Amino acid sequence: MHLAELGERRIIDRIWETLGKREEYDDCVYVPRGDYYDLITTDFIGEGTHFMGEWDPRLIGSFFAAINLSDIAAMGGIPELFMASMFFPPDYPMENLEELVGGINSLLSQYHVEYRGGDLKESRIAGMSGIAIGRVERNKILKRRGARLGDGIYVTGALGKQAAGYYLWKHGFKEAYEHLLDVHPRIEEGRSLAGRATSCMDISDGLSSTITQLENINNLAFLVDFDEIPVHKLAYEVSEDYNIPLEHLVIDFGGEYELIYTSDAKILGKRIGEVSKGKGGIFRDGKKVGGRGYEHFSEVLDKVRGQ
Amino acid sequence: MHLAELGERRIIDRIWETLGKREEYDDCVYVPRGDYYDLITTDFIGEGTHFMGEWDPRLIGSFFAAINLSDIAAMGGIPELFMASMFFPPDYPMENLEELVGGINSLLSQYHVEYRGGDLKESRIAGMSGIAIGRVERNKILKRRGARLGDGIYVTGALGKQAAGYYLWKHGFKEAYEHLLDVHPRIEEGRSLAGRATSCMDISDGLSSTITQLENINNLAFLVDFDEIPVHKLAYEVSEDYNIPLEHLVIDFGGEYELIYTSDAKILGKRIGEVSKGKGGIFRDGKKVGGRGYEHFSEVLDKVRGQ
Repeated sequence: MHLAELGERRIIDRIWETLGKREEYDDCVYVPRGDYYDLITTDFIGEGTHFMGEWDPRLIGSFFAAINLSDIAAMGGIPELFMASMFFPPDYPMENLEELVGGINSLLSQYHVEYRGGDLKESRIAGMSGIAIGRVERNKILKRRGARLGDGIYVTGALGKQAAGYYLWKHGFKEAYEHLLDVHPRIEEGRSLAGRATSCMDISDGLSSTITQLENINNLAFLVDFDEIPVHKLAYEVSEDYNIPLEHLVIDFGGEYELIYTSDAKILGKRIGEVSKGKGGIFRDGKKVGGRGYEHFSEVLDKVRGQ
Repeated sequence: MHLAELGERRIIDRIWETLGKREEYDDCVYVPRGDYYDLITTDFIGEGTHFMGEWDPRLIGSFFAAINLSDIAAMGGIPELFMASMFFPPDYPMENLEELVGGINSLLSQYHVEYRGGDLKESRIAGMSGIAIGRVERNKILKRRGARLGDGIYVTGALGKQAAGYYLWKHGFKEAYEHLLDVHPRIEEGRSLAGRATSCMDISDGLSSTITQLENINNLAFLVDFDEIPVHKLAYEVSEDYNIPLEHLVIDFGGEYELIYTSDAKILGKRIGEVSKGKGGIFRDGKKVGGRGYEHFSEVLDKVRGQ
């Protein structure tokens, strides 16, 4: 059986089965060190799948660093170090690599994170795998599990910009991919939530998928009112101009890296729903909306591949 | 200018220049934590460059884990955790992935290292980037810098097996690649050297390249007697059968992941030379031998690529 027939989550389940272990999914691996947890996370992007060769390497670098730091944010942590294992074809221009590393470093600098090198290899296509390391107080760590019945569900920012940028780019607006890469790790927000929110996760694969994962891990229903979701203005425009359902742009596509958290009172961001019993999901005008979001290796979407 | 025109070390120098920093090369990044250093390292392998798609995934997995742990060994550390950021084309067979992860886990188990997941993505070709995390006592850490005039130079095992395996494989012995992948991280040896050796490094790109790097970083001459180097029996056979200079197999090719260390007295392994003044290098019958070893992105070798 090929990976594409299984989908990412079933593949990961089978890997853990193979190893005879059961790992709880969280945004980072956490390791106790005195009063702290060390947080470790890794995120990969590859040419042709997550970015195209002709895109601005500085923006690719900054995106790459941001999505790695986002996992630290989702656990309430302070990022400290970043390393990158990068590989390129031999004819990759040195100038592009300098721009790319400049982009990584400039994003990291904003969050006082140190770039500490890594590995550099050659490969048939360009790709890079980041490692972000940080820490969080043991009594403040945010996990995906922990939501309580009656908690509100909150989001740190507007959704749909990345999807809108992608479709604009597909429709010939060459620079519009910049919206897809324009991601800000919610480090400060995560720090404000640390020790206060009952559960937290970042939106990589779409709100719909995030909600489903939080429901499964918490064994509770997450009831979200679509009309309460803050929508990026670009998503409204693209939905109208290209006749793409707004739900698809706002909850299916993903890539926003905003934080979703639960709490018995608002800490920051916008309330979009409530942790409840029974049947959960995202509802608009009484009807459940949204698919599964972007799942790697599933047959649904391979957003950029083959463009 | 393309990366291939520069070679790995000049690329890395230019990256640090871009960032306005100067990083000392070591096998791991080390971060002080109380009486210990945390050691963090990452190593990437890609299909078509470091392994071929038809090779046994279990052996690829075990090799992949081994070369990552080797960097912890070279700094005298105890490896604790391993994560992997892996990417595969959608038609990669699930059975192969299970074998691969089984190989990773079985190598890790031998060294009591825990596999803690990582990232899984799709990509045009298969590749994987490992993260090994360990620790070492602050007063025992082994670095590349620290060799003293008059120290002996030692190696933990025989060299040339991986090169021999590669050439056998190229000459049609289909299973011979197994020698190339048969690598054992010298964790126990590294622990014995910790706090005692004056400098240490693992051999990834060939003894010749390792010696050059140690010379540059220590600002001393490393004088090695070729005839003192322990040579793997397969290297003798392949050298004779295919008329390949023994030096090429033993000091240029690399991939052994044995440790090279310096010390004023033997701790383990075999003495092969001495830290001296003047002109260093590897000498045989009074003549300097060996090229630069395998340097990624250089024009010299791309061992497996395009086969």
